[in-house]
Amino acid sequence: MAKRPSEFTLIAQVFAPLATAPEAFGLLDDAAVLPPRPGHDLVVTTDALVEGVHFLAGDPPDTIAKKALRVNLSDLAAKGAEAAGYLLALSLPEHIDDAWIKTFARGLGEDQMAFGISLLGGDTTATPGPLTLAITALGYVPEGKMIHRGGAKAGDCVFVSGTIGDGGGGLAILNRENAPANAQEREELIRRYRVPTPRLTLGRALRNVATAALDVSDGLIADLAHIAEVSCVRIVIEAGRMPRSPALRALWGDSLGALVRAATSGDDYEIAFTAQSENSVVEAAKHAGVAVTRIGRVETGSGIALLDSRGCQIGVPRPGFTHF
Amino acid sequence: MAKRPSEFTLIAQVFAPLATAPEAFGLLDDAAVLPPRPGHDLVVTTDALVEGVHFLAGDPPDTIAKKALRVNLSDLAAKGAEAAGYLLALSLPEHIDDAWIKTFARGLGEDQMAFGISLLGGDTTATPGPLTLAITALGYVPEGKMIHRGGAKAGDCVFVSGTIGDGGGGLAILNRENAPANAQEREELIRRYRVPTPRLTLGRALRNVATAALDVSDGLIADLAHIAEVSCVRIVIEAGRMPRSPALRALWGDSLGALVRAATSGDDYEIAFTAQSENSVVEAAKHAGVAVTRIGRVETGSGIALLDSRGCQIGVPRPGFTHF
Repeated sequence: MAKRPSEFTLIAQVFAPLATAPEAFGLLDDAAVLPPRPGHDLVVTTDALVEGVHFLAGDPPDTIAKKALRVNLSDLAAKGAEAAGYLLALSLPEHIDDAWIKTFARGLGEDQMAFGISLLGGDTTATPGPLTLAITALGYVPEGKMIHRGGAKAGDCVFVSGTIGDGGGGLAILNRENAPANAQEREELIRRYRVPTPRLTLGRALRNVATAALDVSDGLIADLAHIAEVSCVRIVIEAGRMPRSPALRALWGDSLGALVRAATSGDDYEIAFTAQSENSVVEAAKHAGVAVTRIGRVETGSGIALLDSRGCQIGVPRPGFTHF
Repeated sequence: MAKRPSEFTLIAQVFAPLATAPEAFGLLDDAAVLPPRPGHDLVVTTDALVEGVHFLAGDPPDTIAKKALRVNLSDLAAKGAEAAGYLLALSLPEHIDDAWIKTFARGLGEDQMAFGISLLGGDTTATPGPLTLAITALGYVPEGKMIHRGGAKAGDCVFVSGTIGDGGGGLAILNRENAPANAQEREELIRRYRVPTPRLTLGRALRNVATAALDVSDGLIADLAHIAEVSCVRIVIEAGRMPRSPALRALWGDSLGALVRAATSGDDYEIAFTAQSENSVVEAAKHAGVAVTRIGRVETGSGIALLDSRGCQIGVPRPGFTHF
């Protein structure tokens, strides 16, 4: 009946090899210990992912692992932090078998190599419910240099990295709401939903450039509204400037409705930020090798507005995707 | 239909008041930032709790909050660390309402006051499954002073704080396996199951005293077996020395079976440890105001043995409680 290893076997065989940092003691202890890093602050963030809410039951296990890790690394990226390691709390339903867990761990291992981080600790438990993962990611930023949400000032420009709406497009394809014209576009958009790219290099390059930043997880409009609220400013976005991929434009078209949909679908994990000087943003983007687009401006006032090509405000019935 | 507040309202109204440390930015940012503490290592640990696995569906929400926090603080305690703060990833099923969440948050608030810690960050999400909480606790220990699992040496004595088996007794009462003789014993044992006491003061006092330590969560025998394994020693426990509360003795009696049951039931959250000198342990226990009992010794060899009053080894069919 033992279709999967015991907790201790699981830790020893599957997860201990991922604890590559000496601070993790090969998962043989109850806690990890991090020596202080002089001149640096520790940045710490946590995000939980639930099957059926943040990923789909049929998603490949290695992509589930990568998404759980990357949405946390994306938070570190938006704060200008360098990723150091993570802890994983994993609640496994009965049907999860040995092969699933090994593929899941392979996904973690690949991303640890890609991002230069280590598993530091964790907990595995059974659950009668859906697969649930909570990851806590730890990173470092030079003392006092974390990029906050609250620093946007009237006169700043608003920028976003990469392209917006692809994650939402991928989810729509997986939910059979939309059918893409060709296999390559299908794969590209689904990959953006399942395996987002945390913009860690860009985030570090923005430390002395961005006045406020966050990662786009709930939707561009909803997330920029947080910056507007915490910074006590008004943010104005020109819909036509929003960067969208050829694959998403092929899927959703170029109507105003398609633009609003891209601006309000979640799972982008790009960095949206404000900055005073466009030149320094161009330099940072070049350094990071990531496209960055100016999409709007910061004004006095409050709230967020999305403008059409004539400068008229577009009504946004549902500003973002909610996982709650 | 809105029987509970939105995620943002929840964060602003219920959880932001718990983010008392300046490092948490009132939960208005994506991450907390901890400045380096010179001369100290950061100790970090995570534990997930699932309804129906680690606590019962009918448990009061404030005790669920406290248990989730305390099992993590207990890990810090066993490592000799001082608790600083925690992050909470909360997956809430549909039926959880506003009143439940407020009582849950009140429980967290009371324990934050009791242990001098702050909420540092978190994530709330919906789940179609059972209530699931993952807490990551952070603490500090003077550099290099964390107490490990791997330091037990032949010749050391084995100790445990408080009393053993009460948590298991409380669970047996809640599961209607046992009925206590009176209401006071009932309350006492149930309380030990629902709201364990992390031995933080004792843990700190053991920094230069204990050669190895951990907290007893899966059962005394199962957990001491981890120390034996990681330290490459044999641990021998005298069953008759195991400290048991009057309430538990009234519930389970004094038979050998009752002793084995106490030694193998989980949810104690006492500190089990090894030390060279009994005198320094007595001093540490006095300083912490916690009873500590010598229950056995460390020998060369491997594994763990539970001895009866004649020195004969007692067979233990199931060394511990598993949440997996």
